[in-house]
Amino acid sequence: MNLPQSSFPRVVIIGGGFAGLAAAKGLENQELQVVLVDKHNYHTFQPLLYQVATGGLEPDSIAFPLRKRFNDVKNFFFRLAEVVQIHPDKKIIETSIGNLDYDELIIATGSTTNFFGNENIQKNTMEMKSVPQALDIRSLVLENFEEALLTDNLEERNALMNFVIVGGGPTGVELAGALAEMKKGILPKDYPDLDIRKMQINLIQSSAEILKGMSSEASEKAEDFLIGLGVNVWKNLRVLNYDNKIVTTNGEDHFRAETVIWAAGVKGEIVSGLNSSCVIEKAERYKVNEFNQVENHDNIYAIGDVACMKSETNPYGHPMMAQPAIQQGKLVAKNIIAKLFGKKTKAFVYNDKGSMATIGRNKAVVDLPKWKFQGVFAWFVWMFVHLFSLIGFRNKAIVFLNWVYNYVRFDRETRLIIRPFKKKNIV
Amino acid sequence: MNLPQSSFPRVVIIGGGFAGLAAAKGLENQELQVVLVDKHNYHTFQPLLYQVATGGLEPDSIAFPLRKRFNDVKNFFFRLAEVVQIHPDKKIIETSIGNLDYDELIIATGSTTNFFGNENIQKNTMEMKSVPQALDIRSLVLENFEEALLTDNLEERNALMNFVIVGGGPTGVELAGALAEMKKGILPKDYPDLDIRKMQINLIQSSAEILKGMSSEASEKAEDFLIGLGVNVWKNLRVLNYDNKIVTTNGEDHFRAETVIWAAGVKGEIVSGLNSSCVIEKAERYKVNEFNQVENHDNIYAIGDVACMKSETNPYGHPMMAQPAIQQGKLVAKNIIAKLFGKKTKAFVYNDKGSMATIGRNKAVVDLPKWKFQGVFAWFVWMFVHLFSLIGFRNKAIVFLNWVYNYVRFDRETRLIIRPFKKKNIV
Repeated sequence: MNLPQSSFPRVVIIGGGFAGLAAAKGLENQELQVVLVDKHNYHTFQPLLYQVATGGLEPDSIAFPLRKRFNDVKNFFFRLAEVVQIHPDKKIIETSIGNLDYDELIIATGSTTNFFGNENIQKNTMEMKSVPQALDIRSLVLENFEEALLTDNLEERNALMNFVIVGGGPTGVELAGALAEMKKGILPKDYPDLDIRKMQINLIQSSAEILKGMSSEASEKAEDFLIGLGVNVWKNLRVLNYDNKIVTTNGEDHFRAETVIWAAGVKGEIVSGLNSSCVIEKAERYKVNEFNQVENHDNIYAIGDVACMKSETNPYGHPMMAQPAIQQGKLVAKNIIAKLFGKKTKAFVYNDKGSMATIGRNKAVVDLPKWKFQGVFAWFVWMFVHLFSLIGFRNKAIVFLNWVYNYVRFDRETRLIIRPFKKKNIV
Repeated sequence: MNLPQSSFPRVVIIGGGFAGLAAAKGLENQELQVVLVDKHNYHTFQPLLYQVATGGLEPDSIAFPLRKRFNDVKNFFFRLAEVVQIHPDKKIIETSIGNLDYDELIIATGSTTNFFGNENIQKNTMEMKSVPQALDIRSLVLENFEEALLTDNLEERNALMNFVIVGGGPTGVELAGALAEMKKGILPKDYPDLDIRKMQINLIQSSAEILKGMSSEASEKAEDFLIGLGVNVWKNLRVLNYDNKIVTTNGEDHFRAETVIWAAGVKGEIVSGLNSSCVIEKAERYKVNEFNQVENHDNIYAIGDVACMKSETNPYGHPMMAQPAIQQGKLVAKNIIAKLFGKKTKAFVYNDKGSMATIGRNKAVVDLPKWKFQGVFAWFVWMFVHLFSLIGFRNKAIVFLNWVYNYVRFDRETRLIIRPFKKKNIV
């Protein structure tokens, strides 16, 4: 893979998400050679993907070039590649651009959409874990509105304007809210010859409440907000199938819809090579000890979404969110350095800073460890935290400018079909 | 096509570029039904495509949703469609979404890349007339650098870092300058393990000077600027072929390069149905009279790049640029309204406001009718004019912010491979 010779041990990090980036940062300018491998040349700020999907932000403002982040770091190397397999016996990873040997390996591959084995759903629904996927949703939503204009068949038109979002977690809730705001402020102006009242946004949640991981105050308020925005919230309803026409459920309701977004589950993005039965946890995550070491492999760490560290407070592992990923990335870097200098390593303790979700303009819910609040102030806190967490001054400035513009003008201006999803031949 | 019934005559405009947009604007709120048809749902600000291709601007900031532009215009309708054929006898256009009849038809389809019939060149080179094409160039440039890192074969590595731009018009010159600035300021930092001195930027022009349409002062200064930035400028050299490996020419020079951008010619984007031998001009443009009426068709107008209006001052038609397009669009709208009210129509007289091109930071050339100047001031004039010409406050603000950032930081931050060009399966 053409890396410079080095007498220092080599740490390979797979994945430039929150976890991988935090680890790489922690290993800067140490007596180590750090190689970051990712299939994209940019870091994706996943919490804002839903705004890309709904035309509120340009994709380039939530992506940050990984090479640039480490421009001045001498011991850092980036390689654009997909990892095919890990060979722990030979201490090698096999990638699309060749083999790479490691002394320490950090797996930070994150998570991918979990379709729970349903091939129809996997084939026919949209997912939203990457920038291209978010752009596909943006294109599809707009293409469906253009198509709705053309048909005289009322059922077909309604199906084109029917949006089903499966999964009432933060992704589903935020996407449903953003679509509802498009329905309110933008689509009636863009499509004056369509009856936008016919547009339906259905959020389907299999359990008894949305935002399950948050407080009941947050769940209830979020539901109120969504209903206020005109979203149909379906609880205790499980989607069984989608054949590209009809969403069938375990209840009496079914939905004829052209756009179905699957936000009902994620699973660890497991790399083959370590998957002996004992290392895979429920939802396919690597079982790790309190030092994030993968079971039976002292020099292989899994961090972030792909890691499942059981503890008394988190019997099913930590939530698959940015915070645990960042904290684990930082600690693993420290522990690797400690190991290098023969010092003592530290066990991971999750510092739960709380969680939040936004539903729309002036509407968010925030759970802090000692304080829960909802509404306008929560919305400003949400914006501030997200703006602050973005990488790079330019991205922060562009997102801020867009938010101010969208707030003042009640607008979401990047409703562009740059790469059509349905008619892929248009250039 | 599901358009509301109207007792007013219907004007159909094909294409939402500079010309079509100016025409649509001129017909706002008249006793006419205006239908704009475009294969994209956005207007592309083509003069800045080269900045998208080189990571200086996000695509969304130079595209503007067409529906939004006419949100409050009652007599305006937009349809996303590709036009298949014009049937002038039946006063109908045939499109990908059905037929549409017209009373007056404005063809503003613009221009497309002219490969002069060379299929190899068409298949193997990159073109840059649309946002997706500019994004493809951005991906390819970055993918080639990633690949250059991996090979030990020196010839192959040099080919991956060899950029050939064919055509010394504004597009070729601006792209060559932008690539040269990437070579200078950005790529050495992003790829410290590559010898960026090996990166070659070759600009090949078939005639004796670059920027042929401009003054000799402008051409000469632009060439100086390019050479100063390290671009190899080849004049009086004609590219004959590119087999995806080697660019062959009519001279002794040939170039082994992985990236060849074809900016050597454009031709009108002719729609079939009117192409009797008499209406097609050299470079395939519709032959129009001084009212932009297509020969033999009183109610069909061609405007902008696709129109060829011969006059004493412009024996080959007007230059294929924004200014004639905008001016013709405005006048055709006025003439159609005049016809409606039985008033006299006016012949087109081109008001040449001059032309300009930018080569890089503080380096531009400007030809005004009575004043020619080059350098820093020209560069500020170029920026001001382009910023001012962009549609929409948000786009202006975002482009301005990017330019200030890029200027202060010597950076171009959107170097993202969001949709890979070579490995299309990465999502």
